[in-house]
Amino acid sequence: MIYKNYPMVSRVVFGRGCFNQLGDILQPKRLNVKAPFIFLVDAVFKGNSWLTSRIPLAYDDQVFYISADEEPKTSQVDELVENIILSYKDRPSGIIGIGGGTILDLAKAVSIMITNEGQTKNYQGWDLVKNPAIYHVGVPTISGTGSEVSRTTVLTGPDKKLGINSDYTPFDQVVLDPELTKGVPKDQWFYTGMDCYIHCIESLNGTYLNAFSKSYGEKAFELCKSIFMEGDLSKEEAQDELMMASWHGGMSIAYSQVGVAHAMSYGLSYLLGTKHGIGNCIVFDHLDEFYPEGVQLFRKMKEKHDISLPQGICKHLSDEEFDIMIDVALGLEPLWENALGKNWKNIITRSKLKALYQQM
Amino acid sequence: MIYKNYPMVSRVVFGRGCFNQLGDILQPKRLNVKAPFIFLVDAVFKGNSWLTSRIPLAYDDQVFYISADEEPKTSQVDELVENIILSYKDRPSGIIGIGGGTILDLAKAVSIMITNEGQTKNYQGWDLVKNPAIYHVGVPTISGTGSEVSRTTVLTGPDKKLGINSDYTPFDQVVLDPELTKGVPKDQWFYTGMDCYIHCIESLNGTYLNAFSKSYGEKAFELCKSIFMEGDLSKEEAQDELMMASWHGGMSIAYSQVGVAHAMSYGLSYLLGTKHGIGNCIVFDHLDEFYPEGVQLFRKMKEKHDISLPQGICKHLSDEEFDIMIDVALGLEPLWENALGKNWKNIITRSKLKALYQQM
Repeated sequence: MIYKNYPMVSRVVFGRGCFNQLGDILQPKRLNVKAPFIFLVDAVFKGNSWLTSRIPLAYDDQVFYISADEEPKTSQVDELVENIILSYKDRPSGIIGIGGGTILDLAKAVSIMITNEGQTKNYQGWDLVKNPAIYHVGVPTISGTGSEVSRTTVLTGPDKKLGINSDYTPFDQVVLDPELTKGVPKDQWFYTGMDCYIHCIESLNGTYLNAFSKSYGEKAFELCKSIFMEGDLSKEEAQDELMMASWHGGMSIAYSQVGVAHAMSYGLSYLLGTKHGIGNCIVFDHLDEFYPEGVQLFRKMKEKHDISLPQGICKHLSDEEFDIMIDVALGLEPLWENALGKNWKNIITRSKLKALYQQM
Repeated sequence: MIYKNYPMVSRVVFGRGCFNQLGDILQPKRLNVKAPFIFLVDAVFKGNSWLTSRIPLAYDDQVFYISADEEPKTSQVDELVENIILSYKDRPSGIIGIGGGTILDLAKAVSIMITNEGQTKNYQGWDLVKNPAIYHVGVPTISGTGSEVSRTTVLTGPDKKLGINSDYTPFDQVVLDPELTKGVPKDQWFYTGMDCYIHCIESLNGTYLNAFSKSYGEKAFELCKSIFMEGDLSKEEAQDELMMASWHGGMSIAYSQVGVAHAMSYGLSYLLGTKHGIGNCIVFDHLDEFYPEGVQLFRKMKEKHDISLPQGICKHLSDEEFDIMIDVALGLEPLWENALGKNWKNIITRSKLKALYQQM
């Protein structure tokens, strides 16, 4: 058996207000005055001077405000990279993503594509990246995706939704400032938090589980329970702990894999553009067969926070459309193998997947 | 407030038997055929071909078997570095430590001192290292110290026992193979495991605690309880989980600090050469005032495993000798501040420390 040799985030700073240290962190990483830092910032912060006034801009540094309303696309990465390359003679000093999973994944992908030739879609898969990325920093402003700690950057391409999984993908630096999550709307807080919860359930119930992933997954699971069920934390404590849950949940899947909910949710995203967090929730709500206890607790949390999920989103789909979703989902072989074992192809059939999608 | 920007181990592989992957891991890191890998290996493995036959030697690579009977010394690092520099024209490709905290700390220190001028003792302290270390790999063969994940390497120098705390100290690669811990004698297993347990108690009860350290410390604490108290794990599971407890316990203190037990134990080590693990246990057994619940549980674990600690080791010491221990202990200011708050100098007096040492 060959075990993963996992590349970790090189540096992490944690604390309320530590976003103020970003300037000091970047300063020694500036290659020269003509090599800018490029900030990819979630467009929800545009005009929010509480955050934007603290982005440490100097020389030719540039901010791109990017909407996270849609899942990140390979074409979007290609465009950003072209824009950056055409705008500057020098290679940038670094890419800094400030936002949720969408923005963080874009930052990771852009930092890779600046040093790797061709189109982004060609790198979707496992270990296809040839050259190290440029310096890249992740600053999450919502907690749950685990993108801040993972070795993937999940993108929707023309043919598939799949990550760029590589040793060069993880951030060189992560800034964990729980205060940055204070303005997250409740629905989004829940959906993204459940991304973390579902990571834990999929990792802890997967065949890839080992003591490494288990210890991270168990801690993240406990933190999620405490935050979403027990409700005896202050607002600030809950923000702090959800940020750590996301981190540990990310480490747990980083070293193992996700499972059925993620595979099926990728299908929804690819066809319907469903955002990752809510897509996971929609799928997970129908997975009693695979994760009975996890789904039960999920429903209690949903009820406690008065969250109602969209229903019938697949009602009017054609057979061809179901086939597209099923193709995307079944393409994610490691996820199925983790969830159901080496024999997974005998357990999960196209018709079973279709029947599940039809309920959603 | 300025938060720590913590440098993490760059890569980690975990799994029973993953030690077999060391050759594949090192191969791309070899600078040239004249730049050897230097293996520092605990002398207990000398002649143990189960382990030594799997050390991937090539070209001019060299193994140094080093006794861990004594705590690592700055003079020992100086000697090793001189020996290595005189033996090879080329700078080594890397240093690999295979052993417990003593060997891991030596490997970290040697990798630093190969690129930094002067004597090792001059680097004891915080952030005194100027140049990056050479590539260095940690392979723990006993669990608990957290050295595999920390940014320090604790050494006894002519004037003090103190770590080389620096951003260059953490390993570039850690190989976590729980199988390597199978031959650890029971006493040593307990003492070193308790190092981890005490890390958690000191971190979780410290004033430096934040949600980052708390989440790691709580998980490590739970794992310790499960391993040392509950006893419902298989031998292999207990080995796996103690290796993870050490890792998480190390991350917990890495981002905060240790406390009273470590400060006082450094005094014992410096004067009497008491090894770190047992020294911590001897001290901790007398710290009811500072960690009442932690000490209570510690005594239960000691009893359960039928461990008897040395008594009266300070009985015949002179006033001058007590003063030496007290000086070493009080010199570790961050540890006291973490344990007792900014006001610690009013709480812990020399006479109080002496009275505590006299009980040991």
